[in-house]
Amino acid sequence: MKFELTILGAGSAVPTLQRNSAAQVLNVLERYFLIDCAEATQHQLRRFRIPYNRINHIFISHLHGDHYFGLMGFLSSLSMQGRKGEMHLYADPRLQEIIESQLKIMNTRLGYPLRFHPLTRNPEIILDDKVLTVTSFPLLHRYDAPVCGFLFKEKERSRTIRKDMADAWQVPVAFMQYLKAGADFVTPEGKVIPNRMLTVSPPPSRSYAYMTDTLFRERFAEYVSGVDILYHEATYGRELETVAKENYHSTAEQAARMAVLSGAGKLLLGHFSARYPDPSCLLPEARAVFPETYICTDGDVYDIPVQKRLGM
Amino acid sequence: MKFELTILGAGSAVPTLQRNSAAQVLNVLERYFLIDCAEATQHQLRRFRIPYNRINHIFISHLHGDHYFGLMGFLSSLSMQGRKGEMHLYADPRLQEIIESQLKIMNTRLGYPLRFHPLTRNPEIILDDKVLTVTSFPLLHRYDAPVCGFLFKEKERSRTIRKDMADAWQVPVAFMQYLKAGADFVTPEGKVIPNRMLTVSPPPSRSYAYMTDTLFRERFAEYVSGVDILYHEATYGRELETVAKENYHSTAEQAARMAVLSGAGKLLLGHFSARYPDPSCLLPEARAVFPETYICTDGDVYDIPVQKRLGM
Repeated sequence: MKFELTILGAGSAVPTLQRNSAAQVLNVLERYFLIDCAEATQHQLRRFRIPYNRINHIFISHLHGDHYFGLMGFLSSLSMQGRKGEMHLYADPRLQEIIESQLKIMNTRLGYPLRFHPLTRNPEIILDDKVLTVTSFPLLHRYDAPVCGFLFKEKERSRTIRKDMADAWQVPVAFMQYLKAGADFVTPEGKVIPNRMLTVSPPPSRSYAYMTDTLFRERFAEYVSGVDILYHEATYGRELETVAKENYHSTAEQAARMAVLSGAGKLLLGHFSARYPDPSCLLPEARAVFPETYICTDGDVYDIPVQKRLGM
Repeated sequence: MKFELTILGAGSAVPTLQRNSAAQVLNVLERYFLIDCAEATQHQLRRFRIPYNRINHIFISHLHGDHYFGLMGFLSSLSMQGRKGEMHLYADPRLQEIIESQLKIMNTRLGYPLRFHPLTRNPEIILDDKVLTVTSFPLLHRYDAPVCGFLFKEKERSRTIRKDMADAWQVPVAFMQYLKAGADFVTPEGKVIPNRMLTVSPPPSRSYAYMTDTLFRERFAEYVSGVDILYHEATYGRELETVAKENYHSTAEQAARMAVLSGAGKLLLGHFSARYPDPSCLLPEARAVFPETYICTDGDVYDIPVQKRLGM
């Protein structure tokens, strides 16, 4: 029942010896989602022992080098290592052109199908399967195409049947699916047994949001409302708010304001400028606004445990 | 008077935790030449503390990913760190298209001029300045454009004047340049003083050759005749000679034969397949043919000291 985020790179444009540029991997129930793919992301995946051949979906927020320069290498390595399964790529549609022209020049092709899913300027569900949805939403950066954030949200599970009670009221097997969906049970004698007597609520669905390079705008909070963990770029500290604005980036304090506005459970800061050898100096200004703030370091793992609900 | 090679990546197609893919840097008298540029080469340059902003010339043997996927990141980082000086790039001309299309999509440009020098299928001098020449020469690999090796050769220095003897024979200052070039001196009285009485030979010029992905062909030895240090790919061991041939690669033993045929001083092996966690297993077969063989490891430094000559 994992819902676990590993930070592969907490740095920004220029990688340093301390931290690589942007990439993360999210494990939802042993399905691995790669979010951005800076140069040397495949090295980080090996270093942090992620079973990277199980990544079937890659989300690229925008085509600035520190978010995608590692993609060709990663895709190539997978191919050389014998991958056959489909890979889905959610990105600026021009990425398809970049990849295909390089493959052509290298006179090679990938050994597996690569499916392109173009991102747009509209908030939309880009992946919807049994266990989760992924929604992309537009941010505001110095870039002439969509720059997207991503929200990963587990689907609400069906209610869990209380076996002892279902047995006691002799609920037929065929009715169990209705119980899970929330229906009351009516006995052959006509007695109504309320659903809440027979089932317990499922654990709440978990969610993670990735807010990449962006100017701070209050309205973006609606996209990530109530998220459990919010990752927000914090390229600069408050002392460089003007520089942040000029470069279409955010400060740590602004990231914390976004966490407050969206009602996030926890805030992770990353995408630190190389000027901060130790970005923990950004923590006080963020925690003053939103106490549950953490500084990301390459290799950090953050998980959201399943919360058991009793009754109701 | 440095002539010093640093191995940035001794691996091949897929980087491993032990070694990165192909890249090296050659320091000739504090001028830095980058040879190939696999993904994460900029990381390796930082790790091994190479003053990478002093690299003004980059040589890309061919456009297979493990030889160039780090180039965009390296060029971008230099730009973001304020580089202004020209960078010269010697490569398959299609690399220009790859770089320019990505810069266009990123809506950015480099802060310094990037000069493209197309490689061809002919052996030719591609760089010729005061202190050295660089010659490219064609190899044979699975690639539909030139795959090049590179020979770096110091120029012969002028002869060194023996000040004591020049003073004794009262050689005029204006004549010194002729002495350096090897001329005899004739005194006002008509006595001929042979040049070798007045000068000593310069130290021999040093040379380094890089032989990247290639099938073994005896005739290639002529391109690197008498080289001091020969780097030769050795993707496989002799036990996989058939696989090597199928993939247009060489074995360690073949690399050693090339060293013998060319009369090299020392042989460095690299570009090891990821199947060899410890490529020192390839050493015996190579040393049986050419004893002065060494296995490259990321971060290795090989230098060629100036050899003093006395007299003649």
